[in-house]
Amino acid sequence: MEQGGQAALGWAARDSSGHLSPYSFSRRVPRDGDVTIKVLFCGLCHTDLHVLKNDWGNAMYPVVPGHELVGVVTDVAPGVTKFKAGDRVGVGYYVDSCRSCDSCCNGYESYCPQFVQTSNGVDLFDGSITKGGFSDVILVSQDYVVRVPESLSPEGAAPLLCAGITVFSPMVRFGLNAPGKHLGVVGLGGLGHMAVKFGKAFGMKVTVISTSTGKREEALDRLGADAFLVSRDPEQMKAAASTMDGIFDTVSAEHPVAPLLELLKPMGQMVILGVPAKPLEVPAFSLVAGGKRMAGSPGGGIGECQAMLDFAGEHGITADVEVVGMDYVNTAIQRLERNDVRYRFIVDIAGSNLGAAA
Amino acid sequence: MEQGGQAALGWAARDSSGHLSPYSFSRRVPRDGDVTIKVLFCGLCHTDLHVLKNDWGNAMYPVVPGHELVGVVTDVAPGVTKFKAGDRVGVGYYVDSCRSCDSCCNGYESYCPQFVQTSNGVDLFDGSITKGGFSDVILVSQDYVVRVPESLSPEGAAPLLCAGITVFSPMVRFGLNAPGKHLGVVGLGGLGHMAVKFGKAFGMKVTVISTSTGKREEALDRLGADAFLVSRDPEQMKAAASTMDGIFDTVSAEHPVAPLLELLKPMGQMVILGVPAKPLEVPAFSLVAGGKRMAGSPGGGIGECQAMLDFAGEHGITADVEVVGMDYVNTAIQRLERNDVRYRFIVDIAGSNLGAAA
Repeated sequence: MEQGGQAALGWAARDSSGHLSPYSFSRRVPRDGDVTIKVLFCGLCHTDLHVLKNDWGNAMYPVVPGHELVGVVTDVAPGVTKFKAGDRVGVGYYVDSCRSCDSCCNGYESYCPQFVQTSNGVDLFDGSITKGGFSDVILVSQDYVVRVPESLSPEGAAPLLCAGITVFSPMVRFGLNAPGKHLGVVGLGGLGHMAVKFGKAFGMKVTVISTSTGKREEALDRLGADAFLVSRDPEQMKAAASTMDGIFDTVSAEHPVAPLLELLKPMGQMVILGVPAKPLEVPAFSLVAGGKRMAGSPGGGIGECQAMLDFAGEHGITADVEVVGMDYVNTAIQRLERNDVRYRFIVDIAGSNLGAAA
Repeated sequence: MEQGGQAALGWAARDSSGHLSPYSFSRRVPRDGDVTIKVLFCGLCHTDLHVLKNDWGNAMYPVVPGHELVGVVTDVAPGVTKFKAGDRVGVGYYVDSCRSCDSCCNGYESYCPQFVQTSNGVDLFDGSITKGGFSDVILVSQDYVVRVPESLSPEGAAPLLCAGITVFSPMVRFGLNAPGKHLGVVGLGGLGHMAVKFGKAFGMKVTVISTSTGKREEALDRLGADAFLVSRDPEQMKAAASTMDGIFDTVSAEHPVAPLLELLKPMGQMVILGVPAKPLEVPAFSLVAGGKRMAGSPGGGIGECQAMLDFAGEHGITADVEVVGMDYVNTAIQRLERNDVRYRFIVDIAGSNLGAAA
């Protein structure tokens, strides 16, 4: 790793316990085009948990998590044209990519095979391990920084950088953003609640699909969904058959997808955003008979992300969050593991004493 | 069923033996808009076999099969404006639909929930059971009849009405018809060989994917594919990873689809045309990581079918067929069951003595 850059203070996990504690390190010496960002708020996402605990075997400790952050520009290196000190900006789950493949050239940097994750990624220039947003300062190339509308609360905007773009990108890319279309949303977590909000902002009819009635009032009254469908009720499912243009399935637990495909109209599209451990069981006939499609989506490109933030700014869309101090983060991790959060933990980075262990 | 229409002679199965033998019946009294067609050639498709043997439990005997036919117009009823006596025409796998649903109004009649199959379907007006192309004459509404270019051999054009449109429609609808794109074709049967021909005509690079080297020469030399990939060879599969824009999977036998998804570029699309009995096992990560899509497709609309035939006429595309007389059809059925045909049996209806049992 380069030495001699700006001193940084963050919280890191040292091993697969995933326990976070204070960690001092150096950010890189600014490169041309780098933006130095003081981190204000950073979200805690399920992906962070998997990496912290080395669930996927790819953790490179110490791991400083955090890949949906909002901050303020404090300095810009030579060559920076898009931002200036004082700008409110955001960084999502990657901070670089090859910039030359088809995906990069077409604005879909998230599909670049060499994209560099914001946390626990490998820097393309010096091979250092990237440290995420759970730190007071971060340096990112201007090409991977987005502008966050001042009209949005920074803590509520932070999850837009990951959960927000993950639902917005396929919504737009697959044409599931047209007024009057009918969107189903399966699973009401970080992704699901953003899908409801963006779906409504696009003027669609949104139906939340859940295994039980427990989230009915939440979906209808708090998030403004138009309808609520209990997937374990065969009568309700039958009545809703062939009525939806699109379904966003955000559930990572194992669950049957065939009954969900029945809800789609002919040529309808199902977007897979959760990643269950076992393969999905997809009857070919369920796809063939109605000419239906099933798509995955891994976030979005930088341009898409900026468009999403601009749209969110116009429509006042933020995530529903629970803001906590860094001293609470290990408890937050435990609660997130049992999905005990509505809907995203946001760490108040700038308001925390990062040097003090919890 | 209506009485008093034109006498017709066909071959029908009377029970789940699926054995075909001569069958005399009456076609309907012509309705306004009806085209009377003398059948010249009609293809034998796997779907026919399933219905003849009541594999899906929906056979309504006697079943006169046949849903990809080419013939000549002999008469037109009042209201027919699109065709006249002497025109060469074709009929695919449906002869009517509701004409009012979203699918019908948007030119995707094959997605209409009430579409009427050409054989073993239920007429929307009188509830009679439709009799297919294995007969000397058929009456079809002009709105479900397409024009077959005179430049194409009628026997080679017959499979375009089913196999042809089934590959052409998703190729165009999903944008997998652009010069320079790379198309994979899994399975070299009736559908697969059409996918190779249309793919090449669209200027794409076409790779045939097969479990063994047995069809290599066939694919490269006879059909003009650009490359051949053995799916059981890990080295070859690894080298071909992330190189394809689209894959047409025409295989109805059980087979793993996850390795095929690996062949797709980011944002690539896999089109499912075969229908294995067991559900496909689709790892969510295989779709999510590269933003890939998996789509089914059930043929195409009438407008698409006409566009396909016009395109085929311009590019001289026909199916590779084995023409047989009706007296051979029961043998052909047995051979088709073991995929012993290259690539489609076509019954020479007009050239057969339909009244004589084999």
